Amino acid sequence: MTRIAVIGLGSMGFGMARQVLGAGHVTHGFDINPDAESRFRDEGGAEGALPEIAQTLDIVGLVVLNAEQTETVLFGPDGIVGQMRKGAVIVASATVAPDFAREMARRCDEAGVLYLDAPVSGGVVGASSGTLSVMAAGRAEAFEAARPYLDAVAKRVFDLGAESGAGSAMKAVNQLLAGVNLAVMTEAITFGMTQGVSPEKFMEIIPQCAGTSWMLEDRVPQIVNGDYTAKSMINIWPKDLGIVMDIARSAGFSAPITAATLQQFLAAAGIGLGHEDDAALAKLYARNVGLTLPGEG
Amino acid sequence: MTRIAVIGLGSMGFGMARQVLGAGHVTHGFDINPDAESRFRDEGGAEGALPEIAQTLDIVGLVVLNAEQTETVLFGPDGIVGQMRKGAVIVASATVAPDFAREMARRCDEAGVLYLDAPVSGGVVGASSGTLSVMAAGRAEAFEAARPYLDAVAKRVFDLGAESGAGSAMKAVNQLLAGVNLAVMTEAITFGMTQGVSPEKFMEIIPQCAGTSWMLEDRVPQIVNGDYTAKSMINIWPKDLGIVMDIARSAGFSAPITAATLQQFLAAAGIGLGHEDDAALAKLYARNVGLTLPGEG
Repeated sequence: MTRIAVIGLGSMGFGMARQVLGAGHVTHGFDINPDAESRFRDEGGAEGALPEIAQTLDIVGLVVLNAEQTETVLFGPDGIVGQMRKGAVIVASATVAPDFAREMARRCDEAGVLYLDAPVSGGVVGASSGTLSVMAAGRAEAFEAARPYLDAVAKRVFDLGAESGAGSAMKAVNQLLAGVNLAVMTEAITFGMTQGVSPEKFMEIIPQCAGTSWMLEDRVPQIVNGDYTAKSMINIWPKDLGIVMDIARSAGFSAPITAATLQQFLAAAGIGLGHEDDAALAKLYARNVGLTLPGEG
Repeated sequence: MTRIAVIGLGSMGFGMARQVLGAGHVTHGFDINPDAESRFRDEGGAEGALPEIAQTLDIVGLVVLNAEQTETVLFGPDGIVGQMRKGAVIVASATVAPDFAREMARRCDEAGVLYLDAPVSGGVVGASSGTLSVMAAGRAEAFEAARPYLDAVAKRVFDLGAESGAGSAMKAVNQLLAGVNLAVMTEAITFGMTQGVSPEKFMEIIPQCAGTSWMLEDRVPQIVNGDYTAKSMINIWPKDLGIVMDIARSAGFSAPITAATLQQFLAAAGIGLGHEDDAALAKLYARNVGLTLPGEG
Protein backbone atom coordinates (compact mmCIF):
# COMPACT_ATOMS: atom_id res chain seq x y z
CA MET A 1 0.00 0.00 0.00
CA THR A 2 1.47 3.29 -1.14
CA ARG A 3 1.12 6.36 1.05
CA ILE A 4 0.90 9.57 -0.90
CA ALA A 5 0.42 13.25 -0.06
CA VAL A 6 -0.65 15.88 -2.58
CA ILE A 7 0.35 19.36 -1.47
CA GLY A 8 -1.56 22.16 -3.17
CA LEU A 9 -5.28 21.47 -3.68
CA GLY A 10 -6.06 24.15 -6.25
CA SER A 11 -7.85 23.52 -9.51
CA MET A 12 -5.05 21.20 -10.71
CA GLY A 13 -4.01 19.60 -7.43
CA PHE A 14 -7.49 18.75 -6.20
CA GLY A 15 -8.25 16.82 -9.37
CA MET A 16 -4.93 15.02 -9.22
CA ALA A 17 -5.37 14.13 -5.53
CA ARG A 18 -8.80 12.72 -6.33
CA GLN A 19 -7.27 10.52 -9.05
CA VAL A 20 -4.62 9.25 -6.64
CA LEU A 21 -7.31 8.47 -4.08
CA GLY A 22 -9.39 6.73 -6.76
CA ALA A 23 -6.41 4.52 -7.59
CA GLY A 24 -6.63 3.05 -4.08
CA HIS A 25 -3.69 4.69 -2.35
CA VAL A 26 -3.71 6.17 1.13
CA THR A 27 -3.94 9.78 0.07
CA HIS A 28 -3.44 12.91 2.12
CA GLY A 29 -4.32 16.33 0.73
CA PHE A 30 -2.81 19.57 2.06
CA ASP A 31 -3.40 23.19 1.20
CA ILE A 32 -2.97 26.63 2.77
CA ASN A 33 -6.74 26.85 2.45
CA PRO A 34 -8.28 24.64 5.19
CA ASP A 35 -11.58 24.45 3.28
CA ALA A 36 -9.86 22.62 0.44
CA GLU A 37 -8.31 20.19 2.93
CA SER A 38 -11.64 19.43 4.56
CA ARG A 39 -13.35 19.04 1.18
CA PHE A 40 -10.71 16.48 0.26
CA ARG A 41 -11.10 14.59 3.55
CA ASP A 42 -14.86 14.54 2.88
CA GLU A 43 -14.09 12.67 -0.33
CA GLY A 44 -12.06 10.04 1.50
CA GLY A 45 -8.70 11.74 2.03
CA ALA A 46 -6.59 10.38 4.88
CA GLU A 47 -6.49 12.10 8.28
CA GLY A 48 -3.46 13.57 10.00
CA ALA A 49 -1.45 16.78 10.02
CA LEU A 50 1.55 16.91 7.72
CA PRO A 51 4.27 16.98 10.41
CA GLU A 52 2.70 13.89 11.99
CA ILE A 53 2.48 11.80 8.83
CA ALA A 54 5.43 13.10 6.80
CA GLN A 55 7.72 10.24 7.78
CA THR A 56 5.13 7.67 6.63
CA LEU A 57 4.93 8.98 3.06
CA ASP A 58 6.30 7.20 0.01
CA ILE A 59 5.45 9.98 -2.45
CA VAL A 60 4.77 13.70 -2.15
CA GLY A 61 3.12 15.32 -5.18
CA LEU A 62 3.76 19.05 -5.17
CA VAL A 63 1.12 20.98 -7.12
CA VAL A 64 1.76 24.45 -5.77
CA LEU A 65 1.79 27.70 -7.73
CA ASN A 66 5.43 28.59 -8.20
CA ALA A 67 9.07 28.26 -7.19
CA GLU A 68 8.66 30.22 -3.96
CA GLN A 69 5.90 27.93 -2.69
CA THR A 70 7.87 24.88 -3.82
CA GLU A 71 10.90 25.96 -1.83
CA THR A 72 8.82 26.85 1.24
CA VAL A 73 7.09 23.46 1.29
CA LEU A 74 10.34 21.56 0.78
CA PHE A 75 12.87 23.55 2.79
CA GLY A 76 10.99 26.29 4.70
CA PRO A 77 10.61 26.48 8.50
CA ASP A 78 8.30 23.44 8.42
CA GLY A 79 10.00 22.00 5.36
CA ILE A 80 8.92 18.49 4.55
CA VAL A 81 12.19 17.14 3.14
CA GLY A 82 13.83 17.04 6.56
CA GLN A 83 10.94 14.95 7.88
CA MET A 84 10.71 12.40 5.06
CA ARG A 85 12.26 8.98 5.10
CA LYS A 86 15.26 8.17 2.86
CA GLY A 87 14.23 6.95 -0.57
CA ALA A 88 10.84 8.64 -0.58
CA VAL A 89 10.22 10.84 -3.62
CA ILE A 90 9.12 14.42 -4.27
CA VAL A 91 7.23 14.84 -7.56
CA ALA A 92 7.40 18.58 -8.22
CA SER A 93 4.90 19.95 -10.75
CA ALA A 94 4.91 23.74 -10.34
CA THR A 95 6.11 25.62 -13.41
CA VAL A 96 9.61 26.75 -12.42
CA ALA A 97 12.90 27.65 -14.05
CA PRO A 98 15.14 24.71 -14.97
CA ASP A 99 17.94 26.08 -12.78
CA PHE A 100 15.58 26.15 -9.80
CA ALA A 101 14.56 22.53 -10.43
CA ARG A 102 18.22 21.48 -10.52
CA GLU A 103 18.83 23.29 -7.23
CA MET A 104 15.85 21.58 -5.56
CA ALA A 105 17.01 18.18 -6.84
CA ARG A 106 20.50 18.77 -5.48
CA ARG A 107 19.22 19.75 -2.03
CA CYS A 108 16.82 16.77 -1.88
CA ASP A 109 19.66 14.52 -2.91
CA GLU A 110 21.74 15.80 0.01
CA ALA A 111 18.86 14.88 2.32
CA GLY A 112 18.53 11.38 0.85
CA VAL A 113 15.13 12.17 -0.72
CA LEU A 114 14.49 11.51 -4.41
CA TYR A 115 13.30 14.34 -6.64
CA LEU A 116 11.39 14.16 -9.90
CA ASP A 117 11.19 17.38 -11.91
CA ALA A 118 7.69 16.78 -13.27
CA PRO A 119 5.64 19.68 -14.61
CA VAL A 120 2.34 18.75 -16.21
CA SER A 121 0.34 19.71 -19.28
CA GLY A 122 -3.34 19.12 -19.92
CA GLY A 123 -5.13 21.64 -17.75
CA VAL A 124 -7.93 21.21 -15.26
CA VAL A 125 -9.71 18.72 -17.50
CA GLY A 126 -6.59 16.54 -17.69
CA ALA A 127 -6.08 16.82 -13.93
CA SER A 128 -9.63 15.81 -13.06
CA SER A 129 -9.61 12.85 -15.45
CA GLY A 130 -6.12 11.46 -14.83
CA THR A 131 -5.06 12.22 -18.38
CA LEU A 132 -2.26 14.73 -17.87
CA SER A 133 0.98 14.70 -19.76
CA VAL A 134 3.97 14.79 -17.42
CA MET A 135 7.31 16.13 -18.61
CA ALA A 136 9.59 14.36 -16.21
CA ALA A 137 13.30 14.36 -15.52
CA GLY A 138 15.18 12.71 -12.69
CA ARG A 139 17.13 9.61 -11.71
CA ALA A 140 15.77 6.20 -12.55
CA GLU A 141 15.08 5.54 -8.84
CA ALA A 142 12.95 8.69 -8.71
CA PHE A 143 10.90 7.56 -11.71
CA GLU A 144 10.52 4.11 -10.15
CA ALA A 145 9.46 5.45 -6.75
CA ALA A 146 7.00 7.90 -8.33
CA ARG A 147 5.35 5.29 -10.55
CA PRO A 148 2.11 4.73 -8.54
CA TYR A 149 1.47 8.47 -8.48
CA LEU A 150 2.32 8.99 -12.16
CA ASP A 151 0.11 6.07 -13.16
CA ALA A 152 -2.80 7.68 -11.33
CA VAL A 153 -2.53 11.22 -12.69
CA ALA A 154 -1.03 10.87 -16.17
CA LYS A 155 -1.92 9.44 -19.52
CA ARG A 156 1.61 10.06 -20.77
CA VAL A 157 4.93 10.45 -19.02
CA PHE A 158 7.70 11.88 -21.18
CA ASP A 159 11.07 10.76 -19.90
CA LEU A 160 13.41 13.69 -20.44
CA GLY A 161 16.42 12.08 -18.90
CA ALA A 162 18.22 11.78 -15.61
CA GLU A 163 18.96 15.44 -14.97
CA SER A 164 16.26 17.45 -13.19
CA GLY A 165 15.55 20.72 -15.00
CA ALA A 166 14.90 19.11 -18.37
CA GLY A 167 11.24 18.61 -17.50
CA SER A 168 10.88 22.23 -16.49
CA ALA A 169 12.67 23.32 -19.67
CA MET A 170 10.24 21.37 -21.84
CA LYS A 171 7.32 22.74 -19.85
CA ALA A 172 8.58 26.29 -20.43
CA VAL A 173 8.83 25.59 -24.17
CA ASN A 174 5.30 24.20 -24.19
CA GLN A 175 3.89 27.13 -22.18
CA LEU A 176 5.56 29.61 -24.50
CA LEU A 177 3.83 27.96 -27.46
CA ALA A 178 0.48 27.42 -25.76
CA GLY A 179 0.34 31.00 -24.48
CA VAL A 180 1.17 32.54 -27.84
CA ASN A 181 -1.11 30.20 -29.79
CA LEU A 182 -3.98 31.02 -27.43
CA ALA A 183 -3.36 34.76 -27.48
CA VAL A 184 -3.02 34.97 -31.25
CA MET A 185 -6.31 33.10 -31.60
CA THR A 186 -7.99 35.94 -29.71
CA GLU A 187 -6.11 38.49 -31.85
CA ALA A 188 -7.23 36.73 -35.03
CA ILE A 189 -10.88 36.18 -34.12
CA THR A 190 -11.38 39.84 -33.19
CA PHE A 191 -9.40 41.02 -36.22
CA GLY A 192 -11.71 38.86 -38.33
CA MET A 193 -14.76 40.47 -36.75
CA THR A 194 -13.55 43.88 -37.93
CA GLN A 195 -13.57 42.40 -41.46
CA GLY A 196 -16.98 40.76 -41.28
CA VAL A 197 -15.78 37.27 -40.30
CA SER A 198 -18.13 36.13 -37.52
CA PRO A 199 -16.78 34.07 -34.60
CA GLU A 200 -19.01 31.22 -35.80
CA LYS A 201 -17.49 31.27 -39.32
CA PHE A 202 -14.04 31.44 -37.73
CA MET A 203 -14.77 28.37 -35.62
CA GLU A 204 -16.23 26.53 -38.59
CA ILE A 205 -13.39 27.14 -41.04
CA ILE A 206 -10.08 27.86 -39.33
CA PRO A 207 -9.78 24.44 -37.63
CA GLN A 208 -9.63 22.98 -41.16
CA CYS A 209 -6.89 25.40 -42.30
CA ALA A 210 -3.18 25.92 -41.78
CA GLY A 211 -3.84 28.52 -39.07
CA THR A 212 -5.21 26.07 -36.55
CA SER A 213 -3.64 24.99 -33.29
CA TRP A 214 -4.48 22.84 -30.29
CA MET A 215 -5.15 25.90 -28.14
CA LEU A 216 -7.32 27.50 -30.81
CA GLU A 217 -9.56 24.47 -31.08
CA ASP A 218 -9.71 24.05 -27.32
CA ARG A 219 -10.55 27.67 -26.46
CA VAL A 220 -12.50 29.14 -29.37
CA PRO A 221 -15.85 27.69 -28.18
CA GLN A 222 -15.63 29.88 -25.05
CA ILE A 223 -15.62 32.98 -27.24
CA VAL A 224 -18.33 31.78 -29.61
CA ASN A 225 -20.54 30.83 -26.64
CA GLY A 226 -19.65 33.93 -24.63
CA ASP A 227 -18.85 31.70 -21.64
CA TYR A 228 -15.71 32.73 -19.78
CA THR A 229 -16.13 30.49 -16.74
CA ALA A 230 -12.53 29.84 -15.85
CA LYS A 231 -11.14 26.46 -16.86
CA SER A 232 -7.71 28.10 -16.88
CA MET A 233 -7.40 31.70 -15.75
CA ILE A 234 -5.89 34.72 -17.50
CA ASN A 235 -3.81 35.11 -14.30
CA ILE A 236 -1.88 31.91 -15.08
CA TRP A 237 -0.21 33.52 -18.08
CA PRO A 238 1.60 36.55 -16.63
CA LYS A 239 3.11 34.03 -14.20
CA ASP A 240 4.04 31.31 -16.70
CA LEU A 241 5.16 33.59 -19.53
CA GLY A 242 6.96 35.70 -16.92
CA ILE A 243 8.96 32.59 -15.99
CA VAL A 244 9.67 31.95 -19.68
CA MET A 245 10.87 35.52 -20.21
CA ASP A 246 13.03 35.36 -17.07
CA ILE A 247 14.68 32.17 -18.33
CA ALA A 248 15.09 33.66 -21.80
CA ARG A 249 16.69 36.84 -20.48
CA SER A 250 19.08 34.82 -18.32
CA ALA A 251 20.10 32.95 -21.48
CA GLY A 252 20.49 36.17 -23.48
CA PHE A 253 17.67 34.97 -25.70
CA SER A 254 15.45 37.50 -27.51
CA ALA A 255 11.81 36.32 -27.62
CA PRO A 256 9.81 39.20 -29.10
CA ILE A 257 6.64 37.26 -29.90
CA THR A 258 6.40 35.86 -26.39
CA ALA A 259 7.17 39.33 -25.03
CA ALA A 260 4.29 40.89 -26.98
CA THR A 261 1.99 38.11 -25.78
CA LEU A 262 2.95 38.59 -22.15
CA GLN A 263 2.08 42.29 -22.43
CA GLN A 264 -1.40 41.40 -23.68
CA PHE A 265 -2.05 39.04 -20.77
CA LEU A 266 -0.77 41.66 -18.33
CA ALA A 267 -3.10 44.26 -19.84
CA ALA A 268 -6.02 41.84 -19.68
CA ALA A 269 -5.32 41.15 -16.00
CA GLY A 270 -4.93 44.91 -15.51
CA ILE A 271 -8.44 45.67 -16.74
CA GLY A 272 -9.89 43.11 -14.34
CA LEU A 273 -10.06 39.93 -16.41
CA GLY A 274 -7.53 37.98 -14.34
CA HIS A 275 -9.99 35.50 -12.85
CA GLU A 276 -11.84 34.83 -16.10
CA ASP A 277 -11.03 32.03 -18.50
CA ASP A 278 -7.94 32.79 -20.55
CA ALA A 279 -10.03 33.01 -23.73
CA ALA A 280 -11.29 36.30 -22.22
CA LEU A 281 -8.14 37.88 -23.64
CA ALA A 282 -10.48 38.46 -26.61
CA LYS A 283 -12.25 41.07 -24.46
CA LEU A 284 -9.09 43.19 -24.35
CA TYR A 285 -8.87 43.20 -28.15
CA ALA A 286 -12.62 43.84 -28.47
CA ARG A 287 -12.46 46.76 -26.05
CA ASN A 288 -9.52 48.30 -27.91
CA VAL A 289 -11.50 48.47 -31.14
CA GLY A 290 -15.07 48.82 -29.90
CA LEU A 291 -16.35 45.36 -30.83
CA THR A 292 -19.12 43.50 -29.05
CA LEU A 293 -18.32 39.83 -28.50
CA PRO A 294 -20.95 37.06 -28.39
CA GLY A 295 -22.81 37.14 -25.08
CA GLU A 296 -21.90 40.79 -24.39
CA GLY A 297 -23.97 43.94 -24.40
CA MET B 1 -15.23 21.40 -72.99
CA THR B 2 -14.14 24.13 -70.59
CA ARG B 3 -11.44 26.59 -71.66
CA ILE B 4 -9.35 27.83 -68.77
CA ALA B 5 -6.35 30.13 -68.39
CA VAL B 6 -4.15 30.22 -65.31
CA ILE B 7 -2.28 33.51 -65.03
CA GLY B 8 0.74 33.40 -62.78
CA LEU B 9 2.84 30.23 -63.04
CA GLY B 10 4.87 30.56 -59.87
CA SER B 11 5.23 27.81 -57.29
CA MET B 12 1.48 27.87 -56.57
CA GLY B 13 0.11 28.68 -60.03
CA PHE B 14 2.16 26.12 -61.93
CA GLY B 15 0.92 23.30 -59.74
CA MET B 16 -2.67 24.50 -60.02
CA ALA B 17 -2.43 24.86 -63.82
CA ARG B 18 -1.11 21.32 -64.03
CA GLN B 19 -4.10 20.06 -62.02
CA VAL B 20 -6.49 21.89 -64.33
CA LEU B 21 -4.76 20.38 -67.34
CA GLY B 22 -4.88 16.93 -65.75
CA ALA B 23 -8.64 17.30 -65.28
CA GLY B 24 -8.99 17.39 -69.06
CA HIS B 25 -9.69 21.05 -69.72
CA VAL B 26 -8.15 23.15 -72.48
CA THR B 27 -5.64 24.94 -70.30
CA HIS B 28 -3.52 27.98 -71.09
CA GLY B 29 -0.76 29.09 -68.77
CA PHE B 30 0.61 32.65 -68.69
CA ASP B 31 3.40 34.28 -66.75
CA ILE B 32 5.70 37.30 -67.00
CA ASN B 33 8.48 34.72 -67.17
CA PRO B 34 8.44 33.16 -70.69
CA ASP B 35 10.36 30.11 -69.42
CA ALA B 36 7.47 29.19 -67.14
CA GLU B 37 5.05 29.53 -70.06
CA SER B 38 7.12 27.29 -72.30
CA ARG B 39 7.58 24.73 -69.51
CA PHE B 40 3.80 24.60 -69.17
CA ARG B 41 3.26 24.23 -72.93
CA ASP B 42 5.78 21.38 -72.84
CA GLU B 43 3.47 19.63 -70.38
CA GLY B 44 0.49 19.98 -72.68
CA GLY B 45 -0.63 23.56 -72.12
CA ALA B 46 -2.66 25.09 -74.96
CA GLU B 47 -1.05 27.40 -77.53
CA GLY B 48 -1.95 31.01 -78.21
CA ALA B 49 -1.14 34.47 -76.86
CA LEU B 50 -3.48 35.87 -74.24
CA PRO B 51 -4.98 38.69 -76.38
CA GLU B 52 -5.81 36.14 -79.10
CA ILE B 53 -7.55 33.61 -76.90
CA ALA B 54 -9.02 35.80 -74.14
CA GLN B 55 -12.49 35.88 -75.69
CA THR B 56 -12.60 32.05 -75.84
CA LEU B 57 -12.07 31.57 -72.12
CA ASP B 58 -14.69 30.35 -69.66
CA ILE B 59 -12.53 30.72 -66.57
CA VAL B 60 -9.43 32.73 -65.69
CA GLY B 61 -7.58 31.61 -62.57
CA LEU B 62 -5.45 34.42 -61.22
CA VAL B 63 -2.53 33.19 -59.12
CA VAL B 64 -0.37 36.31 -59.11
CA LEU B 65 1.54 37.75 -56.19
CA ASN B 66 -0.49 40.69 -54.96
CA ALA B 67 -3.16 43.35 -55.51
CA GLU B 68 -1.03 45.38 -57.91
CA GLN B 69 -0.47 42.43 -60.26
CA THR B 70 -4.14 41.47 -59.96
CA GLU B 71 -5.26 44.94 -61.03
CA THR B 72 -2.72 45.07 -63.88
CA VAL B 73 -3.84 41.73 -65.31
CA LEU B 74 -7.52 42.59 -65.01
CA PHE B 75 -7.64 46.28 -65.87
CA GLY B 76 -4.16 47.38 -66.98
CA PRO B 77 -3.20 48.52 -70.51
CA ASP B 78 -3.68 44.94 -71.80
CA GLY B 79 -6.31 44.19 -69.18
CA ILE B 80 -8.09 40.91 -69.75
CA VAL B 81 -11.53 41.83 -68.43
CA GLY B 82 -12.29 44.06 -71.43
CA GLN B 83 -11.50 41.16 -73.77
CA MET B 84 -13.49 38.42 -72.02
CA ARG B 85 -16.98 37.32 -73.00
CA LYS B 86 -19.95 38.14 -70.76
CA GLY B 87 -20.56 35.49 -68.14
CA ALA B 88 -16.99 34.21 -68.02
CA VAL B 89 -15.47 34.17 -64.55
CA ILE B 90 -12.32 35.48 -62.88
CA VAL B 91 -11.16 33.34 -59.93
CA ALA B 92 -8.81 35.63 -58.02
CA SER B 93 -6.46 33.93 -55.55
CA ALA B 94 -3.79 36.51 -54.65
CA THR B 95 -3.79 37.51 -51.00
CA VAL B 96 -5.33 40.99 -51.06
CA ALA B 97 -7.27 43.32 -48.78
CA PRO B 98 -11.03 42.66 -48.59
CA ASP B 99 -11.74 46.22 -49.80
CA PHE B 100 -9.60 45.62 -52.88
CA ALA B 101 -11.47 42.39 -53.66
CA ARG B 102 -14.79 44.21 -53.40
CA GLU B 103 -13.49 46.90 -55.78
CA MET B 104 -12.33 44.31 -58.33
CA ALA B 105 -15.68 42.49 -58.13
CA ARG B 106 -17.56 45.75 -58.72
CA ARG B 107 -15.46 46.65 -61.78
CA CYS B 108 -15.79 43.12 -63.23
CA ASP B 109 -19.53 43.31 -62.64
CA GLU B 110 -19.69 46.54 -64.65
CA ALA B 111 -17.96 44.73 -67.52
CA GLY B 112 -20.34 41.76 -67.35
CA VAL B 113 -17.62 39.41 -66.11
CA LEU B 114 -18.18 37.30 -62.99
CA TYR B 115 -15.68 37.54 -60.11
CA LEU B 116 -14.93 35.01 -57.40
CA ASP B 117 -12.85 36.26 -54.46
CA ALA B 118 -10.99 33.01 -53.90
CA PRO B 119 -7.72 32.99 -51.94
CA VAL B 120 -6.27 29.58 -51.22
CA SER B 121 -4.62 27.76 -48.32
CA GLY B 122 -2.53 24.62 -48.47
CA GLY B 123 0.80 25.73 -49.87
CA VAL B 124 2.85 24.35 -52.73
CA VAL B 125 2.05 20.77 -51.72
CA GLY B 126 -1.67 21.49 -51.86
CA ALA B 127 -1.30 23.29 -55.19
CA SER B 128 0.63 20.47 -56.83
CA SER B 129 -1.76 17.79 -55.60
CA GLY B 130 -5.10 19.51 -56.17
CA THR B 131 -5.85 19.55 -52.45
CA LEU B 132 -6.01 23.26 -51.69
CA SER B 133 -8.61 24.85 -49.47
CA VAL B 134 -10.33 27.76 -51.20
CA MET B 135 -11.95 30.53 -49.17
CA ALA B 136 -14.43 31.78 -51.70
CA ALA B 137 -16.97 34.58 -51.83
CA GLY B 138 -19.03 35.79 -54.77
CA ARG B 139 -22.40 35.49 -56.44
CA ALA B 140 -23.93 32.06 -57.00
CA GLU B 141 -23.35 32.41 -60.78
CA ALA B 142 -19.65 32.99 -60.13
CA PHE B 143 -19.41 29.85 -58.00
CA GLU B 144 -21.29 27.90 -60.65
CA ALA B 145 -19.13 29.15 -63.53
CA ALA B 146 -15.92 28.49 -61.57
CA ARG B 147 -16.87 24.92 -60.62
CA PRO B 148 -14.67 23.00 -63.14
CA TYR B 149 -11.62 24.99 -62.01
CA LEU B 150 -12.40 24.69 -58.29
CA ASP B 151 -12.99 20.95 -58.66
CA ALA B 152 -9.55 20.57 -60.23
CA VAL B 153 -7.50 22.57 -57.73
CA ALA B 154 -9.31 22.21 -54.40
CA LYS B 155 -10.17 19.56 -51.87
CA ARG B 156 -12.41 21.96 -50.00
CA VAL B 157 -14.23 25.12 -51.03
CA PHE B 158 -15.53 27.22 -48.16
CA ASP B 159 -18.52 29.27 -49.26
CA LEU B 160 -18.20 32.59 -47.45
CA GLY B 161 -21.24 34.16 -49.03
CA ALA B 162 -22.25 36.33 -51.94
CA GLU B 163 -20.14 39.37 -51.19
CA SER B 164 -16.58 39.38 -52.53
CA GLY B 165 -14.09 40.38 -49.84
CA ALA B 166 -15.23 37.78 -47.34
CA GLY B 167 -12.85 35.21 -48.84
CA SER B 168 -9.94 37.62 -48.60
CA ALA B 169 -10.93 38.50 -45.03
CA MET B 170 -10.87 34.84 -44.00
CA LYS B 171 -7.56 34.36 -45.79
CA ALA B 172 -6.08 37.31 -43.88
CA VAL B 173 -7.28 35.77 -40.62
CA ASN B 174 -5.74 32.43 -41.55
CA GLN B 175 -2.43 34.00 -42.62
CA LEU B 176 -2.22 35.96 -39.39
CA LEU B 177 -2.58 32.71 -37.46
CA ALA B 178 -0.33 30.61 -39.67
CA GLY B 179 2.43 33.24 -39.69
CA VAL B 180 2.44 33.66 -35.93
CA ASN B 181 2.14 29.93 -35.23
CA LEU B 182 5.07 29.27 -37.55
CA ALA B 183 7.22 32.06 -36.17
CA VAL B 184 6.59 31.17 -32.54
CA MET B 185 7.57 27.57 -33.30
CA THR B 186 11.01 28.85 -34.35
CA GLU B 187 11.13 31.07 -31.24
CA ALA B 188 10.24 28.10 -29.04
CA ILE B 189 12.57 25.53 -30.58
CA THR B 190 15.59 27.83 -30.30
CA PHE B 191 14.57 28.94 -26.80
CA GLY B 192 14.41 25.25 -25.89
CA MET B 193 17.90 24.69 -27.26
CA THR B 194 19.26 27.31 -24.84
CA GLN B 195 17.75 25.17 -22.05
CA GLY B 196 19.05 21.83 -23.26
CA VAL B 197 15.91 20.75 -25.16
CA SER B 198 17.17 19.32 -28.45
CA PRO B 199 15.22 19.93 -31.67
CA GLU B 200 14.63 16.15 -31.83
CA LYS B 201 13.11 16.07 -28.33
CA PHE B 202 11.01 19.10 -29.25
CA MET B 203 9.69 17.34 -32.35
CA GLU B 204 9.03 14.16 -30.40
CA ILE B 205 7.11 15.69 -27.51
CA ILE B 206 5.50 19.03 -28.38
CA PRO B 207 3.15 17.62 -31.08
CA GLN B 208 1.53 15.61 -28.26
CA CYS B 209 1.12 18.67 -26.01
CA ALA B 210 -1.07 21.75 -25.78
CA GLY B 211 1.58 23.86 -27.52
CA THR B 212 1.20 22.19 -30.88
CA SER B 213 -0.18 23.70 -34.08
CA TRP B 214 -0.66 22.74 -37.70
CA MET B 215 2.24 24.95 -38.78
CA LEU B 216 4.49 23.57 -36.06
CA GLU B 217 3.95 19.99 -37.13
CA ASP B 218 4.31 20.88 -40.80
CA ARG B 219 7.53 22.90 -40.51
CA VAL B 220 9.50 21.49 -37.59
CA PRO B 221 11.05 18.66 -39.66
CA GLN B 222 12.83 21.26 -41.79
CA ILE B 223 14.67 22.51 -38.72
CA VAL B 224 15.41 19.06 -37.31
CA ASN B 225 16.74 17.92 -40.70
CA GLY B 226 18.54 21.19 -41.42
CA ASP B 227 16.86 21.32 -44.83
CA TYR B 228 15.62 24.78 -45.77
CA THR B 229 14.81 24.08 -49.41
CA ALA B 230 11.94 26.46 -49.95
CA LYS B 231 8.47 24.95 -49.93
CA SER B 232 7.18 28.36 -48.90
CA MET B 233 9.62 31.25 -48.70
CA ILE B 234 10.40 33.63 -45.84
CA ASN B 235 9.65 36.39 -48.38
CA ILE B 236 5.96 35.44 -48.46
CA TRP B 237 5.46 36.61 -44.89
CA PRO B 238 6.49 40.28 -44.97
CA LYS B 239 4.03 40.55 -47.85
CA ASP B 240 1.14 38.61 -46.33
CA LEU B 241 1.52 39.90 -42.76
CA GLY B 242 2.06 43.37 -44.23
CA ILE B 243 -1.36 43.08 -45.85
CA VAL B 244 -2.82 41.91 -42.54
CA MET B 245 -1.27 44.86 -40.68
CA ASP B 246 -2.48 47.32 -43.35
CA ILE B 247 -6.02 45.99 -43.03
CA ALA B 248 -5.76 46.06 -39.23
CA ARG B 249 -4.52 49.65 -39.17
CA SER B 250 -7.31 50.73 -41.52
CA ALA B 251 -9.77 49.19 -39.07
CA GLY B 252 -8.10 50.84 -36.07
CA PHE B 253 -7.24 47.37 -34.79
CA SER B 254 -4.18 46.84 -32.57
CA ALA B 255 -2.43 43.53 -33.36
CA PRO B 256 0.75 43.48 -31.30
CA ILE B 257 1.54 39.77 -31.65
CA THR B 258 1.24 39.89 -35.44
CA ALA B 259 3.29 43.09 -35.42
CA ALA B 260 6.14 41.45 -33.51
CA THR B 261 6.01 38.47 -35.86
CA LEU B 262 6.18 40.67 -38.96
CA GLN B 263 9.32 42.34 -37.58
CA GLN B 264 10.99 38.94 -37.19
CA PHE B 265 10.22 37.95 -40.80
CA LEU B 266 11.47 41.34 -42.01
CA ALA B 267 14.70 40.87 -40.07
CA ALA B 268 15.12 37.35 -41.46
CA ALA B 269 14.67 38.63 -45.01
CA GLY B 270 17.06 41.46 -44.16
CA ILE B 271 19.88 39.10 -43.24
CA GLY B 272 19.48 37.27 -46.53
CA LEU B 273 17.10 34.43 -45.69
CA GLY B 274 14.26 35.65 -47.92
CA HIS B 275 14.48 32.84 -50.47
CA GLU B 276 14.87 30.04 -47.95
CA ASP B 277 12.01 28.02 -46.53
CA ASP B 278 10.06 29.96 -43.93
CA ALA B 279 11.24 27.57 -41.20
CA ALA B 280 14.61 29.31 -41.68
CA LEU B 281 13.29 32.01 -39.38
CA ALA B 282 14.92 29.77 -36.75
CA LYS B 283 18.28 30.93 -38.14
CA LEU B 284 17.55 34.51 -37.08
CA TYR B 285 16.86 33.39 -33.51
CA ALA B 286 19.91 31.10 -33.53
CA ARG B 287 22.16 33.89 -34.79
CA ASN B 288 20.89 36.27 -32.12
CA VAL B 289 21.95 33.94 -29.32
CA GLY B 290 24.89 32.09 -30.88
CA LEU B 291 23.28 28.70 -31.34
CA THR B 292 24.19 26.18 -34.01
CA LEU B 293 21.16 24.57 -35.64
CA PRO B 294 21.12 21.02 -37.04
CA GLY B 295 22.94 20.88 -40.38
CA GLU B 296 24.92 24.06 -39.66
CA GLY B 297 28.57 24.59 -38.86
